[in-house]
Amino acid sequence: MTEAYDDTNVFARILRGEIPAHKVYEDDYTLAIMDIMPAADGHVLVIPKTPCRNILDCPDDALQSIIVITARLARAVKKAFIADGVTVAQYSETAGGQEVFHLHFHVIPRQMGEHLRPLPRPSADHALLARHGEMIRQAME
Amino acid sequence: MTEAYDDTNVFARILRGEIPAHKVYEDDYTLAIMDIMPAADGHVLVIPKTPCRNILDCPDDALQSIIVITARLARAVKKAFIADGVTVAQYSETAGGQEVFHLHFHVIPRQMGEHLRPLPRPSADHALLARHGEMIRQAME
Repeated sequence: MTEAYDDTNVFARILRGEIPAHKVYEDDYTLAIMDIMPAADGHVLVIPKTPCRNILDCPDDALQSIIVITARLARAVKKAFIADGVTVAQYSETAGGQEVFHLHFHVIPRQMGEHLRPLPRPSADHALLARHGEMIRQAME
Repeated sequence: MTEAYDDTNVFARILRGEIPAHKVYEDDYTLAIMDIMPAADGHVLVIPKTPCRNILDCPDDALQSIIVITARLARAVKKAFIADGVTVAQYSETAGGQEVFHLHFHVIPRQMGEHLRPLPRPSADHALLARHGEMIRQAME
């Protein structure tokens, strides 16, 4: 049994424009923003505009929109950060690793031999996040 | 720059029927099999029949097919293993965590307080994998 969606979560508030975010991409269905506690430089989150808690309750058409943008962002972060690889992850429920209960896909550029920053992670500098977001936007095809 | 697809990888060989696998789901576009070195019991891999190396070179329509089946399997493993959550992951290139160079999504049921088995992991018993595969098949909607 999946729990109900609660629209007071931080991504719902960002989608409503109530709090700011470093936006990387936006269309009618999807928003991509910089993770403010990045596991590596260039860590982006891809979020559907459809209210859903995680992959367990997300409508198929919203997932199909998200995954195409997730792939575009994977290519973009690899190019922008001259990365050796990319890690994509989606966590459902606390046991699955989820912290904000609005579906999101993590897209993280990876360099050979560099581990992800362990949790809990510090918040990144906002000027740095803005610059990284701009690098990714420019690298999107 | 993404490297070229090499059809001698183990998932390509499974797709051609050259080596066996514990199949959980199959349609015209997608195959799901049990991971033989599971990070947790019920660890499933979702694989497109389209030859592609990872998310960086996969056609959008193949990704859209895979993600819908990935979500169905996420719900199924949660139900079959009475899990508290689910972790979905997709690794691109060695630096991203990829070991077999044919695109695959990991779907892993998660229990509160239980960590994933660390790498390198032992191969699971085949009778156990067969039983887990049957549990997931029966839980699919």
